[in-house]
Amino acid sequence: MNKTVYTNIFGTFMLKGDKVIAKKLFKNLTDRKNKLKYEKEYLKKSVEKADSDFVFPKDKTFNELFYKFNMDKTKKDLIKSVRTDNLINQAINNIDDLNRVINLLSKRLREWYSLYFPELDLKIDDNEAYAKIVSTKKRTTLEKEFGVRTIGSDLSTEDVNQMKSLAKEISNLIKLREEEKNYIEEIMSYHCPNLMEVATTTIAAELIEHAHTLENLAEMTSSTIQLLGAEKALFRHLKNKRARCPKHGIIINHPFVGTAKHKDKGKAARHLASAISIATKVDFFHEGTLDNKQGKLLVAKLKKQLNIK
Amino acid sequence: MNKTVYTNIFGTFMLKGDKVIAKKLFKNLTDRKNKLKYEKEYLKKSVEKADSDFVFPKDKTFNELFYKFNMDKTKKDLIKSVRTDNLINQAINNIDDLNRVINLLSKRLREWYSLYFPELDLKIDDNEAYAKIVSTKKRTTLEKEFGVRTIGSDLSTEDVNQMKSLAKEISNLIKLREEEKNYIEEIMSYHCPNLMEVATTTIAAELIEHAHTLENLAEMTSSTIQLLGAEKALFRHLKNKRARCPKHGIIINHPFVGTAKHKDKGKAARHLASAISIATKVDFFHEGTLDNKQGKLLVAKLKKQLNIK
Repeated sequence: MNKTVYTNIFGTFMLKGDKVIAKKLFKNLTDRKNKLKYEKEYLKKSVEKADSDFVFPKDKTFNELFYKFNMDKTKKDLIKSVRTDNLINQAINNIDDLNRVINLLSKRLREWYSLYFPELDLKIDDNEAYAKIVSTKKRTTLEKEFGVRTIGSDLSTEDVNQMKSLAKEISNLIKLREEEKNYIEEIMSYHCPNLMEVATTTIAAELIEHAHTLENLAEMTSSTIQLLGAEKALFRHLKNKRARCPKHGIIINHPFVGTAKHKDKGKAARHLASAISIATKVDFFHEGTLDNKQGKLLVAKLKKQLNIK
Repeated sequence: MNKTVYTNIFGTFMLKGDKVIAKKLFKNLTDRKNKLKYEKEYLKKSVEKADSDFVFPKDKTFNELFYKFNMDKTKKDLIKSVRTDNLINQAINNIDDLNRVINLLSKRLREWYSLYFPELDLKIDDNEAYAKIVSTKKRTTLEKEFGVRTIGSDLSTEDVNQMKSLAKEISNLIKLREEEKNYIEEIMSYHCPNLMEVATTTIAAELIEHAHTLENLAEMTSSTIQLLGAEKALFRHLKNKRARCPKHGIIINHPFVGTAKHKDKGKAARHLASAISIATKVDFFHEGTLDNKQGKLLVAKLKKQLNIK
């Protein structure tokens, strides 16, 4: 059987039939530049072994094999590359999008429906309640409920129905947003239960979104986590010493920081960031199944440190 | 019966009981400053008539009456003030909003679903079709249909269901947009049938939105209508003579202008704008019921002028 020497991007191979009997893998590009040396080496060896039927595969039979192998490997890697982080990020961004959409359409609904019943705009601040009322209640009923006589125009049923359709759609979008929130909570309780325990769902989601992946977040120092989301204020401080250094970023919304006295906020943020950092590391570097034991311990410790009952 | 002289913001009135027997209405603020003069005049007259029981109503009995009357009148005017124009504008703006919303959510859906089945993003350009496919078909079915083996990740049913919910919502929003379009067409065929006949629905709606009301549009000259929507280009031309004067604004999208040869576009736009101007005036200043007879005549004339069969 013919022996062949073959070089591709991975290395120089000696083949017998289609089995590799010796190989020299390239470690870097300089290695690859020396490929002729390796090839000669193999050629020499086989000459010593008195194999005269050595050929360079000019027919490129193996090119196709290598191509197929590479493609398959890349595909498999790509399939594996989607991580829970990606799903969490998409879901968080989707909630952001839905918020924007709901606000935009609610503004339109308020402007539109105010041609018909302007008093409602002032009475109801909440967009969700507003959309629900518009889509389900009649104006006459509402007039009685609020005890007003409207100065809105008398429009035809068809005109009002258009507004109601929009209101119904807004209600649907709000329902979808709730669904998404539950979904995020569910995958996060599986993916990073300790982080969720310490940081609360919303803040945990925001932290992951900010760091892009749980891995990045796990590799951050506690002080970085403390200021995540306050980058603008931080760089303002670094450029101009007169601007104060920020004490907290995203985590300001956490109840432990929010309820602390003004002078204690910095301390609370520091301790919380440290606990979040530990919890994230536990979640990312764990082996086997995950639970939120560590998170609960961290919360208990935090409460002690911050004198919270 | 007592005669009284009374002055309010509208004028000076001489009353007998609660009937007005003489009045001097104020034309402007200077008039109002002279109110003492008018009051004295009335007082003098009645002295000549030997009415000794003239009094100024210091008890302000009529103030309340006037207040009530003014409030009622204002309310009635407000109720009448909503015109079909307002409804058309709101509906057009709503369609704009819906377009933005649908694009935003479709972009999110494409990014998200591409974690699961990236090949679809390239195969389907249309957002409506994309959302429909995602919400109704399984990946395995799609793989067969398009003859590809996906490199997307294998996600759990729950993960995919979230994407499907979003896709369904997008489909709903698209349906709502269609509904709105039909609604606009309907009210416009009642409100400005001739304008619609000449300008096509979309362009008619855009023109009204640009002019805010049909009244404004009816008061515009044909040349203003020709350039409506090309304000930027026009002012660039007026500031800097080297920039060319624009030949058409919104109406470029009209088939008569769009299909004209390049050198005839200006002429087509001019004739079309003139026809639109006439049609709008017919629609706005009509009496009795409206039909699109004039519009049809104008279209026939236009076709002759532009040699369109």
